[in-house]
Amino acid sequence: MNFKDCAELLKKNDGFLLLTHINPDGDTVGSAAALCSALRRAGKTAYVMENPGLTDKLRGYIAPFLALEGYAGAFTVAVDIAAQGLLTPGYAGGVDLCIDHHPSNTRYAASTLVCDDRSSCGELVLEVIKALRGSVTKSEATLLYMALATDNGCFRYSNTNSASFRAAAELLRLGADNAEINIRFFREASPARIRLEGLIYLSMSYYREGKIVVAEITQDMMREAGATEEDMDDIANLPGRAEGCALSVTIREQPDGTCRLSLRSTKEVNSSDICAVFGGGGHALAAGCTISGTPARAREMILDVINEVWK
Amino acid sequence: MNFKDCAELLKKNDGFLLLTHINPDGDTVGSAAALCSALRRAGKTAYVMENPGLTDKLRGYIAPFLALEGYAGAFTVAVDIAAQGLLTPGYAGGVDLCIDHHPSNTRYAASTLVCDDRSSCGELVLEVIKALRGSVTKSEATLLYMALATDNGCFRYSNTNSASFRAAAELLRLGADNAEINIRFFREASPARIRLEGLIYLSMSYYREGKIVVAEITQDMMREAGATEEDMDDIANLPGRAEGCALSVTIREQPDGTCRLSLRSTKEVNSSDICAVFGGGGHALAAGCTISGTPARAREMILDVINEVWK
Repeated sequence: MNFKDCAELLKKNDGFLLLTHINPDGDTVGSAAALCSALRRAGKTAYVMENPGLTDKLRGYIAPFLALEGYAGAFTVAVDIAAQGLLTPGYAGGVDLCIDHHPSNTRYAASTLVCDDRSSCGELVLEVIKALRGSVTKSEATLLYMALATDNGCFRYSNTNSASFRAAAELLRLGADNAEINIRFFREASPARIRLEGLIYLSMSYYREGKIVVAEITQDMMREAGATEEDMDDIANLPGRAEGCALSVTIREQPDGTCRLSLRSTKEVNSSDICAVFGGGGHALAAGCTISGTPARAREMILDVINEVWK
Repeated sequence: MNFKDCAELLKKNDGFLLLTHINPDGDTVGSAAALCSALRRAGKTAYVMENPGLTDKLRGYIAPFLALEGYAGAFTVAVDIAAQGLLTPGYAGGVDLCIDHHPSNTRYAASTLVCDDRSSCGELVLEVIKALRGSVTKSEATLLYMALATDNGCFRYSNTNSASFRAAAELLRLGADNAEINIRFFREASPARIRLEGLIYLSMSYYREGKIVVAEITQDMMREAGATEEDMDDIANLPGRAEGCALSVTIREQPDGTCRLSLRSTKEVNSSDICAVFGGGGHALAAGCTISGTPARAREMILDVINEVWK
């Protein structure tokens, strides 16, 4: 299905219910909100289903489009959702159309528009809106910039490609308020998060001339910073900032006396192999496992295995 | 002068000496290195003048192009240099051609190519190289991506526009290694810098429900972190990350017993007005001043003035 077919299908229907994925992020929220806005401009009735996982920040962008309880809709569109099991929690019906960019999309919808070479679903929705309406509003452009930039780490992640930059150029030309999105998603942090980052940076220890870095996040540190789960976004990526680091380990002490470990590595070493020794797993460059005991004990055990696996 | 005229002027000459600006940054270095590479591909003799201000990181990118002592050149090109006083330290001759993007360019060169709506000089050099050679190599594209991305804070600063993104799209299509540049300039930090950030984050105090944030960098903190001047890039921008902050003050204790203060603000308050009270200055959104005494005393004095100026 191409963008034009997708727009034609939308034109033929009405009473839209748009779905965002479980643990919603900027891409699913920005894409669904922008599409909902464009459908309304096309004279359609359109709402996004309430998603209990929305953070306050994301809720602010999607609030004008959320359906009231009881709205069922007549045509359901899943946005940025790779599989049925990832649909908005509480949704049990079928899906008429899915717009997505995940290579793993399982084709669970009646119709599917997938471009898996795009860094965000927002790039696809931009094309769909253009085919549907011939124009994009400023607020839609801002929502789509949010979708795009949050899914590629503001153009730093490895999924950033030439098409990501072309879409960004177009969205700015259409009036996207990139400054607001950049501040809210890539600069601002709560005072608790800032204090916690400070404590993490001071907890870092270096091994093998800095090629291995270990950071700790204890329950005491969480309390001292006043941090909650909402402050933990992306936290396992911080210690890897250290120059020359090939493998970083972030040890998070849990309330139950175990430790969750997150490993991040360059191609030089396989994180997954190390975590597998403790019954964990993941990918070569990012993996995790759980170890019983104090952070000090977890550190000792993981370093022993690292030294065995990575000579 | 347009890009084609500029390329014609380069084609007609030989024995190039390229100049970077005082306190060289990624834009002047990346632009000069890429242009030097393209001139050599055109069969020309071309070198970049040694610049004593080069950091080790930037030197790595420009090293293959640096002139040996004694090379004078026959045609001098200033790259990303707005005024004669900003030329490479030690250069005393005239300038035949200037390629620049600063609105403040003083037209000091015999010929000048200025596009002041571009976020980086690298975008201009990209067009000049295309007009000169009809092609851009991968390594030139990487150098130009460095120029572009470092001058707009990896697409986060307010100078980022649609043309910045279009240039980035083209550079990636030409094979630029954006991953390497992103890691080296926007992620990596020395262990000393990371420790210092930790100490700064823990030093932050909040006033007026977080609208004012004050951070301190004492001589003791510098010693404890093992930090030097090379670790201080952009450091005054850190405390402004705090959610809801409208005015941040970074107090740096100096070895001579004074404190240097850097203010950053939103449009809500004028930093320059506050600094002017202490004989300092700057712009509305970023200003600085010096206060004698300990950081504690400097904090007290600046807060008094802030409370008077900003009701």
